[in-house]
Amino acid sequence: MPRPLPHRLVAEYLGSLLLAALVIGSGIAAQRLSPGDVGLQLLENAAATAVGLFALILIFGPVSGGHFNPAVSLVDAIFRGLAWRDVPAYALVQVLGCVTGAVLANTMFEAAPISISTTERATAAHGLSEVVATVGLLLVIFSLVRSGRAALAPAAVGAYIGAAYFFTSSTSFANPAITVGRAFSDTFAGIAPSSVPAYVLAQLVGVAVAVPLLRLLYPTQTTPAPTAPVPSTTDSTAPVTEGQVR
Amino acid sequence: MPRPLPHRLVAEYLGSLLLAALVIGSGIAAQRLSPGDVGLQLLENAAATAVGLFALILIFGPVSGGHFNPAVSLVDAIFRGLAWRDVPAYALVQVLGCVTGAVLANTMFEAAPISISTTERATAAHGLSEVVATVGLLLVIFSLVRSGRAALAPAAVGAYIGAAYFFTSSTSFANPAITVGRAFSDTFAGIAPSSVPAYVLAQLVGVAVAVPLLRLLYPTQTTPAPTAPVPSTTDSTAPVTEGQVR
Amino acid sequence: MPRPLPHRLVAEYLGSLLLAALVIGSGIAAQRLSPGDVGLQLLENAAATAVGLFALILIFGPVSGGHFNPAVSLVDAIFRGLAWRDVPAYALVQVLGCVTGAVLANTMFEAAPISISTTERATAAHGLSEVVATVGLLLVIFSLVRSGRAALAPAAVGAYIGAAYFFTSSTSFANPAITVGRAFSDTFAGIAPSSVPAYVLAQLVGVAVAVPLLRLLYPTQTTPAPTAPVPSTTDSTAPVTEGQVR
Amino acid sequence: MPRPLPHRLVAEYLGSLLLAALVIGSGIAAQRLSPGDVGLQLLENAAATAVGLFALILIFGPVSGGHFNPAVSLVDAIFRGLAWRDVPAYALVQVLGCVTGAVLANTMFEAAPISISTTERATAAHGLSEVVATVGLLLVIFSLVRSGRAALAPAAVGAYIGAAYFFTSSTSFANPAITVGRAFSDTFAGIAPSSVPAYVLAQLVGVAVAVPLLRLLYPTQTTPAPTAPVPSTTDSTAPVTEGQVR
Repeated sequence: MPRPLPHRLVAEYLGSLLLAALVIGSGIAAQRLSPGDVGLQLLENAAATAVGLFALILIFGPVSGGHFNPAVSLVDAIFRGLAWRDVPAYALVQVLGCVTGAVLANTMFEAAPISISTTERATAAHGLSEVVATVGLLLVIFSLVRSGRAALAPAAVGAYIGAAYFFTSSTSFANPAITVGRAFSDTFAGIAPSSVPAYVLAQLVGVAVAVPLLRLLYPTQTTPAPTAPVPSTTDSTAPVTEGQVR
Repeated sequence: MPRPLPHRLVAEYLGSLLLAALVIGSGIAAQRLSPGDVGLQLLENAAATAVGLFALILIFGPVSGGHFNPAVSLVDAIFRGLAWRDVPAYALVQVLGCVTGAVLANTMFEAAPISISTTERATAAHGLSEVVATVGLLLVIFSLVRSGRAALAPAAVGAYIGAAYFFTSSTSFANPAITVGRAFSDTFAGIAPSSVPAYVLAQLVGVAVAVPLLRLLYPTQTTPAPTAPVPSTTDSTAPVTEGQVR
Repeated sequence: MPRPLPHRLVAEYLGSLLLAALVIGSGIAAQRLSPGDVGLQLLENAAATAVGLFALILIFGPVSGGHFNPAVSLVDAIFRGLAWRDVPAYALVQVLGCVTGAVLANTMFEAAPISISTTERATAAHGLSEVVATVGLLLVIFSLVRSGRAALAPAAVGAYIGAAYFFTSSTSFANPAITVGRAFSDTFAGIAPSSVPAYVLAQLVGVAVAVPLLRLLYPTQTTPAPTAPVPSTTDSTAPVTEGQVR
Repeated sequence: MPRPLPHRLVAEYLGSLLLAALVIGSGIAAQRLSPGDVGLQLLENAAATAVGLFALILIFGPVSGGHFNPAVSLVDAIFRGLAWRDVPAYALVQVLGCVTGAVLANTMFEAAPISISTTERATAAHGLSEVVATVGLLLVIFSLVRSGRAALAPAAVGAYIGAAYFFTSSTSFANPAITVGRAFSDTFAGIAPSSVPAYVLAQLVGVAVAVPLLRLLYPTQTTPAPTAPVPSTTDSTAPVTEGQVR
């Protein structure tokens, strides 16, 4: 049984906030500290995003799903995970969270709290890249979910996004909420508002491509086994107590 | 039943010592070997810290909890893990361990065993960063602990800290003990003693923010199951539904 | 029981396509963004490939085995995983997928969709490197498969390939399909068609060396246990057969 | 019951060979491709070593323990894992494997098959570093082994060594066999023969420090749960004995 909707919305809001702070903040640090090589900036940005995303999904996943991304919430609804009636609220708090995270990142780095990005990104090649990036992200998440391997999603999503920053020319936004959030920081990770619609559209095309592929690859949802009477919860039969593991 | 306190204090002392040697030592190496790019220095420092922290928590976690951090011990006591009466001793050996680790790092790199840092870091933006960094660290650790996933903490904490070095402007100390220890090395990772109180205060604010958030996100502690007669061995029997895990 | 062959071929085609897009695309990004240091380019290319490959094998592994590599399919058949009659079809779609992925990568980066590589790579040292790289890759995959640890293959293969980009002089193609695919992109990861036969030959020598080593190290196939009456829900008890996991 | 000694020696030989090829080969690549920044060279070398070591221990661990290191074999014997009578043979093939691996690395990179290193490394600071590096490595391995978590050793050892390349001034050899092997390559990872005895001595001091610490931290060996009647085959219930996993 899912947690009450308000709790889940808090989780999605906070997770989206921290995701945007992670993506934009590490972009600012990279740009300032490695001024001589854009590839090195992107490597720093990608590495921080990959490992940070792993941690964020671990934090919020059991509460709300750890989507932080309307495209993910939409596909989750299509596959009868998230209730359709919860999708708009999820999307709203995801966008608000990402905008707040942009403000937080700007402030942590002593920039103006809000600065509208001037980085034009809308090209056909970037649009194609966003389609590919979003398809890949959705394949990763829902291949795992539909085959009973959802516990691997935090590591897999972090890894995938870290790779996609480099193998697409758009640096793989793959998320309408963070696309909007990034418009509020005129820094490394920013995107001009005029380019936002093209990116979001491409991401929605990605949804349309990914869903039939997932139906083909994973036609049935593997239900996780019913929890055993005495539920085991750890991976390490080592005796772990709250006071004994950091 | 926890291990005897003296054993746990040895573990916390050694772990804190090695943590400070890791953070400060890799900072010295980075600064000397990559003089031309501060971002690359931070990448080397962050990567070494992330993977080294994973190893250190694996070593000492089952003995003492692998805190190496008074903020973590404090929150663990608040959530009734660590006994309150053990907190002062934990904090003391954590600080002593980090100071010893600074001396060890300096010595391994042929610097004076003790050099007081001259790097002033106390700014409002850095203070905000330390609040955010500490909140995130505590969310990672206690989300896992409170949901029966403590075995993931070593990887998650390493990953989180590696990211936080980049997405905060303070490079994420997030730990009063290592903040003190870093004052004893006038190198890349150092902090001037005059800046220490502001950092520690911000970290305590982070504790005050994180605890209610954790109570909201994870209202009850999931107790790890007693070992079943036929032990289950997996990491993913946490109750995962499609709508609940990205 | 394996999935129907057409489904498996779709998975191998898509996985090979995305693998080539990953390898070639991240190479293009690295070359353009870090023009001053070839080692940094290779680091960016290797890091993206390592973590991306982890994600790709997770996506397609349960469907087709996630081979993306005729050498792997061949050895899988030798060890009685994949049916011999399926090997030619696997190899064909792997090659077609890698060629398509090269075109996709070129297009995402606004290069001509097809450009034949002019990078001559055929030297004795590179040939030796490809033998070593392929032996290592096959040892990783089939050591895990033959000892009931196939669930670790996605992480292990990604890690191994990331390392092999650096410890061999050939940058470790280790895959006849992607060797052909890379000929279609005159960029960082490309290989001139005249060098392709030597690379493929060396990879086949690697197969010939790896198989007897694997028979010596792992003389018997450990069969995964039949699912217990109360099924466990983890990634590692997913019905994994030798023919189904790379 | 352990595998026959000859099989285990083949595994230790091959694993040591590939370890040396990994360490030395990636060092050569880094030095040649990133001539402008020694820190970047070390980052490339460390990253490749970390992930490659993870793969190598996965390959050979279930056969021989995956030690590749006489210091590890010695401590394993002290803790009654490896039989004392097998230690000399283990050490011998480890040294021979590492020397062969140096020759292989040199050859893959078109250098003379054997070139004696001229890099003098014997200083007091480096000696201290090797003691620390070896203590840390042994704590990682045997903390896991003695607490029933040996399945985590491949990832933990790779991570630890990647960190130790940076946080020690000696770049953490921590292994007498590879110390000898590195003398046979006058490249980035090399060590002059005159410096070898000091390094090996420091590593043995590390053994002498680590063993009592391990007895204090983990006084008893936790036996992995008895295998269930129908043996499960996942990585965590693989029949792991102290003598069989590094």
